[in-house]
Amino acid sequence: MTAAKTNPGNFFEDFAVGQVIDHATPRTITEGDRALYGAIYPTRFAVPSSAEFAASVGLAPHPVEELVGFHVAFGKTVPDVSLNAVANLGYAECRFHLPVVPGDTLSTRSEVIGLKQNSNGRTGVVWVRSTATNQRGEVAIDWARWVMVHKRSAVEGGAESPAPETVVPALAPAVEAGDLVVPAGLDFSSYDDAAAGSPHRLGDYEVGERIDHVDGVTLTDAEHMMATRLWQNTAKVHFSTDARPDGRRLVYGGHVISLARALSFNGLANAQLIAAINAGAHVSPAFADDTVHAWSEVIDVAELDAPGVGALRLRLVATRGRDESMTLRTEDGKYADGVLLDLDYWALIPR
Amino acid sequence: MTAAKTNPGNFFEDFAVGQVIDHATPRTITEGDRALYGAIYPTRFAVPSSAEFAASVGLAPHPVEELVGFHVAFGKTVPDVSLNAVANLGYAECRFHLPVVPGDTLSTRSEVIGLKQNSNGRTGVVWVRSTATNQRGEVAIDWARWVMVHKRSAVEGGAESPAPETVVPALAPAVEAGDLVVPAGLDFSSYDDAAAGSPHRLGDYEVGERIDHVDGVTLTDAEHMMATRLWQNTAKVHFSTDARPDGRRLVYGGHVISLARALSFNGLANAQLIAAINAGAHVSPAFADDTVHAWSEVIDVAELDAPGVGALRLRLVATRGRDESMTLRTEDGKYADGVLLDLDYWALIPR
Amino acid sequence: MTAAKTNPGNFFEDFAVGQVIDHATPRTITEGDRALYGAIYPTRFAVPSSAEFAASVGLAPHPVEELVGFHVAFGKTVPDVSLNAVANLGYAECRFHLPVVPGDTLSTRSEVIGLKQNSNGRTGVVWVRSTATNQRGEVAIDWARWVMVHKRSAVEGGAESPAPETVVPALAPAVEAGDLVVPAGLDFSSYDDAAAGSPHRLGDYEVGERIDHVDGVTLTDAEHMMATRLWQNTAKVHFSTDARPDGRRLVYGGHVISLARALSFNGLANAQLIAAINAGAHVSPAFADDTVHAWSEVIDVAELDAPGVGALRLRLVATRGRDESMTLRTEDGKYADGVLLDLDYWALIPR
Repeated sequence: MTAAKTNPGNFFEDFAVGQVIDHATPRTITEGDRALYGAIYPTRFAVPSSAEFAASVGLAPHPVEELVGFHVAFGKTVPDVSLNAVANLGYAECRFHLPVVPGDTLSTRSEVIGLKQNSNGRTGVVWVRSTATNQRGEVAIDWARWVMVHKRSAVEGGAESPAPETVVPALAPAVEAGDLVVPAGLDFSSYDDAAAGSPHRLGDYEVGERIDHVDGVTLTDAEHMMATRLWQNTAKVHFSTDARPDGRRLVYGGHVISLARALSFNGLANAQLIAAINAGAHVSPAFADDTVHAWSEVIDVAELDAPGVGALRLRLVATRGRDESMTLRTEDGKYADGVLLDLDYWALIPR
Repeated sequence: MTAAKTNPGNFFEDFAVGQVIDHATPRTITEGDRALYGAIYPTRFAVPSSAEFAASVGLAPHPVEELVGFHVAFGKTVPDVSLNAVANLGYAECRFHLPVVPGDTLSTRSEVIGLKQNSNGRTGVVWVRSTATNQRGEVAIDWARWVMVHKRSAVEGGAESPAPETVVPALAPAVEAGDLVVPAGLDFSSYDDAAAGSPHRLGDYEVGERIDHVDGVTLTDAEHMMATRLWQNTAKVHFSTDARPDGRRLVYGGHVISLARALSFNGLANAQLIAAINAGAHVSPAFADDTVHAWSEVIDVAELDAPGVGALRLRLVATRGRDESMTLRTEDGKYADGVLLDLDYWALIPR
Repeated sequence: MTAAKTNPGNFFEDFAVGQVIDHATPRTITEGDRALYGAIYPTRFAVPSSAEFAASVGLAPHPVEELVGFHVAFGKTVPDVSLNAVANLGYAECRFHLPVVPGDTLSTRSEVIGLKQNSNGRTGVVWVRSTATNQRGEVAIDWARWVMVHKRSAVEGGAESPAPETVVPALAPAVEAGDLVVPAGLDFSSYDDAAAGSPHRLGDYEVGERIDHVDGVTLTDAEHMMATRLWQNTAKVHFSTDARPDGRRLVYGGHVISLARALSFNGLANAQLIAAINAGAHVSPAFADDTVHAWSEVIDVAELDAPGVGALRLRLVATRGRDESMTLRTEDGKYADGVLLDLDYWALIPR
């Protein structure tokens, strides 16, 4: 009876292609979220830092960082999609459709777009496309994500349940520059480099260029737990020393994304807004006392239609300890030791 | 001379039945408090999470959690009532009269309603009734509380001061369902179960039912100190390793209450609002690195006059480590090992 | 190429007397900053705590603590002034010209007012005067500061670069009482002692009086890092265990200032507003697990023109562990063991 009222999460058998899940707990964003984000991550991008700067580039009211909206919207999907996940396998086609501002209330809906049972018969891969909308029903963020989840029959024992028909969705390797959404009104034509903290604009970055962001941050359990709770992410491995055999609290992958993005200010101070996330891999787990550093590689550059606006496609790599050699993979093609995150995204930057 | 300007707190001799104390430091509640509360406690109740959801049940402007108001109002009483407390013995007759919203400023006044010297002549019990009012002078919260405090004559030596006349107030074992205050305008008749995260309403809960809330949170010093400071609670045992012989920082009891209440979302997601606290015992102390779990027992159910509104009387038990057996007391009547908190409260839930 | 885009900070050779630096990243203050400040520091001063109390003394909208503005404004100067600092040598002539309120956006500009190469030829002292202005261009705070920075030629090797002409600015040992700025509208004539938490007004303090603030707070890495990030202070020694040989994260000196100021409430509850900082020395470094206590000495008292307003000039001393003897210096004139901070400031207090 008690189990009936607590959330057991969904197992592989519970998902069907075409199924739509309205996730619980709409969440209103406030100035408190902005302040906590700035306390937990060393962010200094001028748009989220200053209402005046944001207004000067056409963004009023004052938006919070794109990742605030992303983490909140993503957190809503965890109880239904990944509570029984073995692994988060990837993201794709994540686009930020409009800025999130204090007072906005975000809700998230997901549709199952793919299923594939693994050959071991014990787990399967579930693909979902999730959409976060605001209180006006406008799409703020959408993304695809796939996770490996346990089969109930493997966890609870008994006869193995049948495998569903395999459906693997076609997902773009990256959002095309032409498909990036520029926030309405964004205008970088009178952009203030000095206020933003860097003279380097779109034209100063070359494809293939790598930037060592130099600074590092040592993780604490208190900080990653506070951040992860703020997003209402409920996966117990992040919060409880009795949830894992090693007694360590696993740092939420999104915490490493936000930390690396904030560290990237030192070298990418004008990459003001995240427009899209093309792909992301949480290569290895992070824990308290790890010192996280980051480096970026320029993958592509594009000019967009909005006044003064360009886009940089960047690989953002977070590492345990600083790797001045900025090595992503070893000769055998494996990720180099210490790589925590490999994120492929588009940022908007003045031309 | 210096002692004359610092607050020594009150000793048993300083209290008299009928005495009224206006506590210092009115405190304005802000959206920053909401965000910090959500960062420190894993709360997901839809009313405090979403201004849109709150408005949809008749609550606008957007209230913060009842415990935000309670902790702030309670914290004001500490310098005058319990700075020299040996122990917090209990609470009773706590009612939430109206929602607290950002912009409200809370002040607290206490009246001494009982005194009883202990037979050892060194300590005594003080009963106070405290009332928190907002900037319009409206009562937001009131409660009774009793603490054991040192006698000055025992602490400072010298002749034992005389005992006061014993006055033990009559306090109700629980607030009657009929005496619960439903916030003006609360209407659960068009309540959205999916948004709230659970289909279980008043009628789905049975008296005697116990719910294991499953999840756990491991405590850190940074988080409990931040929470306790937010409430301007000044008891030094919470903040300083040199305040206790064991060098450990004692976790504020209210921190465990808020943590257990937040954990109870998993099984009680629709128990949206706390209407009253009937009784509470901090059974054993909590410290950093303890992993807190919680379970609840349904003590009573009631239908209230407001549209769609019912009430659940719940025992909320916090434990060090998870106790799937949900054992409150051993055969000899003592609390089971690991029980940290035994709280008896009323929550409002849709019928 | 990558180094070209990250900030190497300025070396001694990069500064010239008369040079003006517009620091990056304007920062909007919010209610989230107020809440975080109250979570990280045990502050209970009635003006920043209560919008109602603040309005009752003529301050509306509701100001945040002066040190919130100071830390934010100061943090902006770090990447340009002290990223390569060997030591922060001092402050002088810091005045708070108008209250900072949520919604204000602060920007900081510095002018180099002095240079002196050290005899070792490897380092030099740089004096700057920094001015923080709000979105209306009004001066909120200004101060002078001097730091010892490395010479590039010493760090990068090669021929020693020439020494600049020595210019040592004349700085006042303290702001004169007559030069203190009282916030427009401040009126203490109907000041509420009970609400503020103390009956002690200007006339109750005597020059030479020392007050032991009694309470202590044990530092955690999570809290000082969150505070320092909030101020967008980027000095890596505060955040990364790989930035110092001992693997410890150095606590930002301003964190100790705010902690000591908050602790001083217990004895100085009516010293509501900081009007000026005359001088400050970070005598020894602080680290996590240190327990910080504080005591104050009254240096001067003054009556100001504003209704009911007086000023206390105070020495605020923070110590590692409690020093009930309140000893600043030993017989040989050196700071006593355990002294962390020696701050000289003016506070506004009701007459």
